[in-house]
Amino acid sequence: MFGARCMCLFLRRCSSVPCAKHAASTKLLRVREALEVQDPTGGDVRVQGWVHSVRSQKQILFLHVNDGSSLESLQVVADPGLESRELTFGSSVEVQGKLIKSPHKRQNVELAADNIRVVGPCDVLAFPLKYKTRHPPEYLRQFPHFRCRSNSLSALLRIRSEATSAIHSYFKENGYIHVHTPILTSNDCEGAGEVFQVEPANEVREPGENPHFFNVPAFLTVSGQLHLEVMAGAFTKVFTFGPTFRADNSQSRRHLAEFYMVEAELSFVESLQDLMQVMEDLFKKVTNTVLSKCSHDVELFHKHVAPGQEAKLEQMLKNTFIIMSYTEAIEILKRARQEFTYKPEWGQDLQSEHERYLVQHCGRIPVFVFNYPYDLKPFYMRDNEDGVHHTVAAVDLLVPEVGELCGGSLREDRVDFLQPRLQRLGLEDTYQWYLELCRFGSTPHGGFGMGFERYLRTILGVENIKDVIPFPRFPNSCVL
Amino acid sequence: MFGARCMCLFLRRCSSVPCAKHAASTKLLRVREALEVQDPTGGDVRVQGWVHSVRSQKQILFLHVNDGSSLESLQVVADPGLESRELTFGSSVEVQGKLIKSPHKRQNVELAADNIRVVGPCDVLAFPLKYKTRHPPEYLRQFPHFRCRSNSLSALLRIRSEATSAIHSYFKENGYIHVHTPILTSNDCEGAGEVFQVEPANEVREPGENPHFFNVPAFLTVSGQLHLEVMAGAFTKVFTFGPTFRADNSQSRRHLAEFYMVEAELSFVESLQDLMQVMEDLFKKVTNTVLSKCSHDVELFHKHVAPGQEAKLEQMLKNTFIIMSYTEAIEILKRARQEFTYKPEWGQDLQSEHERYLVQHCGRIPVFVFNYPYDLKPFYMRDNEDGVHHTVAAVDLLVPEVGELCGGSLREDRVDFLQPRLQRLGLEDTYQWYLELCRFGSTPHGGFGMGFERYLRTILGVENIKDVIPFPRFPNSCVL
Repeated sequence: MFGARCMCLFLRRCSSVPCAKHAASTKLLRVREALEVQDPTGGDVRVQGWVHSVRSQKQILFLHVNDGSSLESLQVVADPGLESRELTFGSSVEVQGKLIKSPHKRQNVELAADNIRVVGPCDVLAFPLKYKTRHPPEYLRQFPHFRCRSNSLSALLRIRSEATSAIHSYFKENGYIHVHTPILTSNDCEGAGEVFQVEPANEVREPGENPHFFNVPAFLTVSGQLHLEVMAGAFTKVFTFGPTFRADNSQSRRHLAEFYMVEAELSFVESLQDLMQVMEDLFKKVTNTVLSKCSHDVELFHKHVAPGQEAKLEQMLKNTFIIMSYTEAIEILKRARQEFTYKPEWGQDLQSEHERYLVQHCGRIPVFVFNYPYDLKPFYMRDNEDGVHHTVAAVDLLVPEVGELCGGSLREDRVDFLQPRLQRLGLEDTYQWYLELCRFGSTPHGGFGMGFERYLRTILGVENIKDVIPFPRFPNSCVL
Repeated sequence: MFGARCMCLFLRRCSSVPCAKHAASTKLLRVREALEVQDPTGGDVRVQGWVHSVRSQKQILFLHVNDGSSLESLQVVADPGLESRELTFGSSVEVQGKLIKSPHKRQNVELAADNIRVVGPCDVLAFPLKYKTRHPPEYLRQFPHFRCRSNSLSALLRIRSEATSAIHSYFKENGYIHVHTPILTSNDCEGAGEVFQVEPANEVREPGENPHFFNVPAFLTVSGQLHLEVMAGAFTKVFTFGPTFRADNSQSRRHLAEFYMVEAELSFVESLQDLMQVMEDLFKKVTNTVLSKCSHDVELFHKHVAPGQEAKLEQMLKNTFIIMSYTEAIEILKRARQEFTYKPEWGQDLQSEHERYLVQHCGRIPVFVFNYPYDLKPFYMRDNEDGVHHTVAAVDLLVPEVGELCGGSLREDRVDFLQPRLQRLGLEDTYQWYLELCRFGSTPHGGFGMGFERYLRTILGVENIKDVIPFPRFPNSCVL
């Protein structure tokens, strides 16, 4: 495993390279583990990672080695004799030595190196990431294969991993069954039309043969909701967390062609309030977990990327979310002194400018807006019967900057409401199976979806959605 | 919340329907929670779920209510006066009453009902699932919106959910970062050609406009490996667990167009042994978790679906997996008395019949086969330098019945090996970015993928892959 220098050789105790004793006895530590050691005993350890800095002084060589397990690097101190031409910023190394108490205040421990092996050198001049440079996100996006080695993206991806885990845990602890809802579907849930279609590449179909691989046109899912509704009819509480797709041609900071959705569906739910409770609880619990498990990573965003975000997030976490009806929301917007591009009008969709105003109006506390006009919403939302097709039991959660974070509804579980509605839309045949769900042991039920990238933007204050996903896909771009 | 009968009314203590006191004081319990109560205090509780059986006797009405939280149903005992025409198999109900010690040996507790409300009736004659019938899997597959209500599918989906969670936990506990590798990609990792291509549905491109939404042809991923390799260069240990796709036209019990893969990638790995260790550990730890958390659900499969599977699985879990080289495997196959359809020959791929024989030969203990012929494998596998393009450091894990469960390799991280190889394949331009990974702080690294549906088939003994996924997609079928 080791190169030319053994720790024994360095210490001039033996000459075997490396001596069996030390090669076997050194314990491999992740940087994070090393940094968490409270009382270093000076035992032999090995650390592997990438060099974030090299500083050579007359008497001593300082390295910072990072292996992605934490934002912080481990400081390595060594005899300047261990320096080599290949030991540069960006190179990968294995360092063997002793973990000792650091004399510096900034860290608890440091690694006194006996041996440093450059595993993979790095041509610093050609490497797009530069030493001690905070690259702007636009620059980093040009290097999708290297940007994860920057501090900001690696912090983001650790947060993303932790949030993913926290979301799974939240639902598991609350008795939900996880379901892999299908990515390929013959439904188009929202009826929005902006869907991707899928066929085999380079496949030639025989004349007379069905033109489709699946016999029917197949699309990339825009939501797992309808499939979750099937599952809620067996498990009461279910969730899914997977990729969803929109063939939206807009070039915006808010949209991606491929993004992640957390969706939950609950049977025996008769009130929107019950759904709002889950959304609020999910947001707060997951965020608190992320804040406690990734404090340094989050701090990077709250200090350097979006200063002031820490206080904004605290405001969201400590307050009970506000609840208002769509009708109230329109009233508030009409009374506003602000000039809107789109005039607020009952029956019209809320635009981003309206959403932003409403959240601002509520002191930047997240706001649930519920009971939307019937005609604005898809067929599966429950008629409130407060007039002839007046409102449906839908609810959106609006948050500062990002706007709509979650959307949910009670579902129409009454055949005599659902059937005529599907008929009017010409969807009765397509959704025969959905009607059947109402006929056999149905329950009042409801659910919601939360955009995962929007969630990350909400807690971190990141402006562009492309900077919270490892490989962003959007019109004219599908790199790697 | 309650219908005509309040528990008070039934007990003739009051006449309000329902009386405020009881409506507020009853605690909602999941069936699983109710069944786990050791010492029922007779407190008021509510349970919601679906009726799995109704049996009416002169003195007493028996119900079994299931809410998907466990395979077992909760027995409800009630006065026959609580029976109604709508209280049938398949209907959804809310039962209010007292949890009491059961006089029967088969269960610890039962619910003495004070009130039974039918929430959603079920037309038993039209309902495809029948009372007390074990439907064969082929029958159930015809009803993708109802089969999750059968015992076998609901058990399967609970196991799937628990295994998903156990896999996430395994990697998290071992220091891996979770990565959402992209579903849409401009690479075709395996170069196999059997990929799905993606374009917006119904979008008309202007003449002269780029014909592709993403400017380039975009495919559904067949593996997250190359993207994980990018990430391993920042985080050392990474994993992904998501959908992958093959436009394979074969109608087999072993293949789906959409299936799930668990993939891991590790930096600073110089030996296949290190990868094998992770695969074996992952398999055993996750399986032990599933066995302990879903014992009843697993039992259903081991007793009724695949009798004898329990002993087979024990054999896999208690033994250290066997390791043999591809060359040894070919020798064993050549010495075999069995007639193979495909003659075993060094340089040829192992066929399913060969894989089955090898596992049988090893006493039905899982076998790692390593060091495959260079020419059989993709460009990214590491040349062993045991001859001119002789073998690469690849490893497959073979298990009884299913055959290949995992496939992995060390990756070629040496530019002077990789570049000429890509050149010969005409892929040098496409994989410029991949070559760059070798040039800037690369490490010896490797990884593997495990088919999640194959994993479920392996532990449960389920024959057809369509029966271990909620919504199977295969040629000519994309239902719902």
